[in-house]
Amino acid sequence: MSQYRTHTCGQLRLEHAGETVTLSGWMENLREVGSNFAFLVLRDFYGVTQVVLETEEMVSKVKALNKESTLSVTGVVRERSSKNPKLDTGDIEVVPSEITVLGRCRHNELPFEINFSRDADESQRLKYRYLDLRNPQVKGNIVLRCQVVSALRRAMEEQEFLEITTPILTASSPEGARDYLVPSRKHPGEFYALPQAPQQFKQLLMTAGFDRYFQIAPCFRDEDARGDRSPGEFYQLDMEMAFAGQEDVFAVLEDVLPPIFAKYGAYHAASQAPFRRIPYFQAMEEFGTDKPDLRIDLRVSDVTALLSGCGFAPFEEGVVKAVPVSDCKLPRKAVDKLCADVEVQAGQKPYWFKMDEKGEIAGGVAKFINADPARAQALTEALNLKPNTLVFLSAGTLTEARKTAGVMLKLLGAACEGHMDWERYEFCWIVDFPLYEIGEESGELEFCHNPFSMPSGGMEVLEKAERGELDPLTILAEQYDLVCNGVELSSGAVRNHDPEIMVKAFELVGLGEEDVKAKFPAMYHAFCYGAPPHAGIAPGVDRMVMLLSGESSIREVIAFPMNKSAQDVMMGAPSQVEPGQLDELGIEIVKHQEKA
Amino acid sequence: MSQYRTHTCGQLRLEHAGETVTLSGWMENLREVGSNFAFLVLRDFYGVTQVVLETEEMVSKVKALNKESTLSVTGVVRERSSKNPKLDTGDIEVVPSEITVLGRCRHNELPFEINFSRDADESQRLKYRYLDLRNPQVKGNIVLRCQVVSALRRAMEEQEFLEITTPILTASSPEGARDYLVPSRKHPGEFYALPQAPQQFKQLLMTAGFDRYFQIAPCFRDEDARGDRSPGEFYQLDMEMAFAGQEDVFAVLEDVLPPIFAKYGAYHAASQAPFRRIPYFQAMEEFGTDKPDLRIDLRVSDVTALLSGCGFAPFEEGVVKAVPVSDCKLPRKAVDKLCADVEVQAGQKPYWFKMDEKGEIAGGVAKFINADPARAQALTEALNLKPNTLVFLSAGTLTEARKTAGVMLKLLGAACEGHMDWERYEFCWIVDFPLYEIGEESGELEFCHNPFSMPSGGMEVLEKAERGELDPLTILAEQYDLVCNGVELSSGAVRNHDPEIMVKAFELVGLGEEDVKAKFPAMYHAFCYGAPPHAGIAPGVDRMVMLLSGESSIREVIAFPMNKSAQDVMMGAPSQVEPGQLDELGIEIVKHQEKA
Repeated sequence: MSQYRTHTCGQLRLEHAGETVTLSGWMENLREVGSNFAFLVLRDFYGVTQVVLETEEMVSKVKALNKESTLSVTGVVRERSSKNPKLDTGDIEVVPSEITVLGRCRHNELPFEINFSRDADESQRLKYRYLDLRNPQVKGNIVLRCQVVSALRRAMEEQEFLEITTPILTASSPEGARDYLVPSRKHPGEFYALPQAPQQFKQLLMTAGFDRYFQIAPCFRDEDARGDRSPGEFYQLDMEMAFAGQEDVFAVLEDVLPPIFAKYGAYHAASQAPFRRIPYFQAMEEFGTDKPDLRIDLRVSDVTALLSGCGFAPFEEGVVKAVPVSDCKLPRKAVDKLCADVEVQAGQKPYWFKMDEKGEIAGGVAKFINADPARAQALTEALNLKPNTLVFLSAGTLTEARKTAGVMLKLLGAACEGHMDWERYEFCWIVDFPLYEIGEESGELEFCHNPFSMPSGGMEVLEKAERGELDPLTILAEQYDLVCNGVELSSGAVRNHDPEIMVKAFELVGLGEEDVKAKFPAMYHAFCYGAPPHAGIAPGVDRMVMLLSGESSIREVIAFPMNKSAQDVMMGAPSQVEPGQLDELGIEIVKHQEKA
Repeated sequence: MSQYRTHTCGQLRLEHAGETVTLSGWMENLREVGSNFAFLVLRDFYGVTQVVLETEEMVSKVKALNKESTLSVTGVVRERSSKNPKLDTGDIEVVPSEITVLGRCRHNELPFEINFSRDADESQRLKYRYLDLRNPQVKGNIVLRCQVVSALRRAMEEQEFLEITTPILTASSPEGARDYLVPSRKHPGEFYALPQAPQQFKQLLMTAGFDRYFQIAPCFRDEDARGDRSPGEFYQLDMEMAFAGQEDVFAVLEDVLPPIFAKYGAYHAASQAPFRRIPYFQAMEEFGTDKPDLRIDLRVSDVTALLSGCGFAPFEEGVVKAVPVSDCKLPRKAVDKLCADVEVQAGQKPYWFKMDEKGEIAGGVAKFINADPARAQALTEALNLKPNTLVFLSAGTLTEARKTAGVMLKLLGAACEGHMDWERYEFCWIVDFPLYEIGEESGELEFCHNPFSMPSGGMEVLEKAERGELDPLTILAEQYDLVCNGVELSSGAVRNHDPEIMVKAFELVGLGEEDVKAKFPAMYHAFCYGAPPHAGIAPGVDRMVMLLSGESSIREVIAFPMNKSAQDVMMGAPSQVEPGQLDELGIEIVKHQEKA
C-alpha cells in the first residue's frame, strides 16, 4: 500500500469498522456543526468518504484550509449512526487522529462549484478543465470513453485483428478535407501533413501482406467545429481486411459492436446480428435520409400523384411526401410547434392534416383534399388512414421534399407517443450506394463519394457503360454506411484493388491513369505489385461514445477538448512562437499590409 | 468463411487430406519441373502452402503470371510424398482444380527478392516498404511490436490503470527538444505544437482527480535521427499515479515488464521484482555509466592513488580507473582490437596490463607498475588480481576516465568469455540523482535534469541550502531511471506538486515564480488549486521492442518508418504544398536571397 493511503475514498464498508485507516483525497466540503464538531467530505477518483472532526483542534485546523486542498487523513472507521444508502461508503465514517495537508488549494474561491461545473460557462470549464474533471459526472464520461476504447480493442483482438500504428507525420491524403500542415526543418519549403485518416496506410498494409488490421487511429481535419465534430483531432476504429468483402466486414462489426453498446450504453439493448440492410435508394424513399433511426416506426410515402391538381400551390410543382402517424392525438399547439421545429431543422415549411376521431380529414391543408371526395378516398386508402391519424407533408424538389420528410419523420417519432422505442441501439447498414452522380456544379458525371470503392460488377459493368450499353448512373459501388439511431458511424467499402479497374473508373469521369497516380501515388504503385481484394470501415470513436453516454456535445467525451474556435484555452494553444523557430523552418508569417 | 478462402496458407495439416479447400495469397515462387508439372508456393499472412500443378493448362496459366501476383486456388488437399518438417503445412500440398488471379503483379522484376529484402539498400526497402513487409522476417518484427503493445496495455489495465488519450495538437512543452509546429488557420500567425511527451497533460490529469493514468502515447521531437531514435514520432508507455511515490511506480513496472520481456523477448529470462536499485553516484563509480548492463559481472575500480607517481604521463594528471577481468586469456591481437574499439566508442585511448598465468604483471603499461614492487603489490591486493587477469585502464578528467571505463567494461564483458550472462533481460533502477549541477557553460547552479522532480526532503532541504547550511549540489531529486541491459528505457520522477516548493527550487538557481509560470503555466496554475502527490515514468515503446526483437535499428520495429533524413520516401513526405494552402494559414516560405 502507498505511503499516502491504506484504502481509497470509495472502499470502506461496515466490515472495516474499528480499523485504523489512511485515506487521501480532495477536501470536497466542510460542514461545521460547532466549534468542536464538523463533517468533512473527502473525495478521490473512487468515491467520497465522510470524516467526522470531533475536537476543536481538528475543526480549526481544517477550517483554515480552502476547499479542494488535498489531505491525508488517518483515523478509525466507525459505523454511522445515520447511514446514507445513496453512498457506497454511507455505512461508515472516519474519526481522524491525524490530518496532513498534501497540496494546499491557494484559492478561497473557485471559478465554479465542482459538482455543478456543467452549469458553468463552457469557456470557464475548458480553461479550468482540471477542476471541471473533478466533477464525477464529467469524469464519468471520460472513464466511459476509456472503457469503450479498451473493450473495442479487446473485441478486435479476439477477432484476430492486429493493431498497427501508422504514421502521424505523413503526406497529404485524398480525403477531401483540409490538411493540417507541419513545416519540415530539414527540408525547408516542404511540409508534412497530419493524416485525415490512415486510409492509404491501411490499404498499403493489406498490400504488404497483413491480413486483419485495426487501429484506434487519431485523425486530423482542419475543419470548423460542429456539435458532433471537434476541431482538430478525432479518433476512429479504423479497420481493414485482406481477401475479404462486404460480408466479412459486416460480420466483424455485427459481432464486436452490439455487446459493447449494450454493456456501456445509456440504453442496455442493441440490435443483434445480422443488422438490417437497406439499399441507399430505398432509405432515401422510406426515411427521407440515408441515416434512418430504426427506433421509429414511421415511414415516408410519396403522394405526388394523389395530390396533383388539388389546388394547393406548393403541391403543384415537384414532389409531395407524406409521413402518417397513427394513434396520434397531439393537440393543435403541439402540431404547430412541430411545424416550427421542422422548418428550423429542414429550412422548409411542412404541411399537415389529420383524420380526426370521427374519420374525417380535417385541419391544415384538409380543404384542398376534401374538395374532391375521390381524391380524399384515394389518399385514405393509399396511406391506410384510420381515425386519429396525423399526416405531415413536405413538397418541393425531390431533394427538398425528401430532406424535409426525413426531419418530419424524426421529430414526429420523438414527439408522438408509441412510435419510437427509445431505449435501445438500432443498427443498420445502408448499402448499394451509386458510384457516380451528376455533379451539382459541373453538371458532369462525377464520383459520388470516393474513388476508392470497387464498382459492383467490376470491369465488366464499367466497360458496358463505356460502350453505352448501361447508364453509368445505375452503377453501384461496393460501399456501405453503418448507422445507429439515426447517426452515421462510418462509411466503408470494398476497395478497388485493381489498377486497371481503377483507371477505367476514372476514365468514365474523363480522367485517366495520371490522375489516379496523382491522387494516391503510393497506393497505386503498390497495387501494381499484386494486391489482395480488401475491404474495411472506420466507425468514429468519439461519435460512438457520444451515443453511449447520451451527451449531445462531443466535448463531453474528450479529456482535453479544444473550444469551438480550435483553441486550447487551458494550455494556451495555438500561440505565437519565437522568430528563431520560424527561421529554422524557413517560413515567415504574412504581414497584413498597412494602409498607405 | 470468406468468398476468397476456406483456410489460410498456414492452416492445412494432414487431417485435411482429401478436403476441397480454397486458399488465397501471393504467388511467392513457381518451380517448373516440366511443361505439365510445377510447384507453386502460395504465401499469405499466416504462412505458405505448396500447390502442385499437374496439368499443362495449369502450368502455362500460372507461368504467364509475374511472381507476387495474388491468386485464389481451389483444390484438393493431398498428403505429400516427401514431407517438409520445417514448414507448418509441410505434410500436405494442394492439387488445384481452379486458379483465379485476384491481383496481377504488373512487374516482371521486383526491386529486391522478397525473402532477402533485408539485404537490399535501405532506401529501396523504405520506398517499397509494402514489398519489404512481405518478407516474413520483416513482418515478424511488426507483429512482435503489436503483441508487445497489446500485452503492455492489458498488463496496465490489470493494474487498474486507465488509458486516457491526450491532445496531439497542443502547446509547446518544456521537454527541451525542438517542437514540431502546426500553423493555425483560424488564428493566423499562431501555431500548435505536437507534444514532445504528454508530461503536462498527465500531471493535469492527476490534478483533475484521475488516479492511475497510462497511455501508449505518440511523442514528437524534431531532432536528428540516431540508431535508437527515429526522426519525427516515437511512442512511450506513459504512466502517472496519484497519491503515490517512487515505491508505487517501481512496484507497477516490476510487475508489468518482466513477464512481457520473458514471453516476447529474444531471451526468455528477465529479472524479477524487486529490481536492483543503484544510486546514481555509485553507478557512475562502479560501471562508469548510469546505464549499467547487469548481465556483465565486471566493475570499475578507482586506482588513481595507487598509480600516482608511477611515471606514466597519462596517469599523472586526473584520475585513473581500472576494469579487471579475471580468468581471461585473450590473445594479444584481441586485446589490441579491444583497445581500438574502446577508442572509437569512447573517443579516448585505454591502457592495459595483465597478470599472466605465472602471476606476473606483464604487457601494456606493466613496466610502470613493476618499477615499484610495493606499488605492484598494492595494486594486486586492491584489485584482487589473480593469474590470468586482464586489466584495462582509463585516465583523464573524472568524466573522461569514467566514460572510457564504462565503454571498456561493456566491450570487455562482451568479449571475455564467462563475464556476461547474455541470454536474459537485466533490469535495474538508477536512483538518487542530484537535483542540481554546476552548468558546464554557465558555471552556475542549474537543474540537472528537469525541474519537475520533487527534491528529496522537500521544502526543508531547500531552505537549508538557501540559508547556506547545506551544499545545494548534495540535494537529491526523487528521480529514477529504468535501465535494461545497458539501455535506458526511461526517466521518471516523483513530481514536485507543490507550487511553493517549486518556486523555492527555482529561486536557488536564481529564478522565481514568474519563471515557473512561464515554463509550464497550465500545470502551475492547476497545482494552485490543490494537487495530489504524484509520480510517474514513461518507458520508450520503440526501444523496448528493439531490445525484445534484438534489432539494432529502430526502423526495423516501425511499420512505416521515415528515413534518416526525416522523409517518407514511399508517401513522398514532406512535400511542397499548394500556395493557396499557405495563404489560408497566413504563412509563406522564406525565399533565399538571390545574389545582387
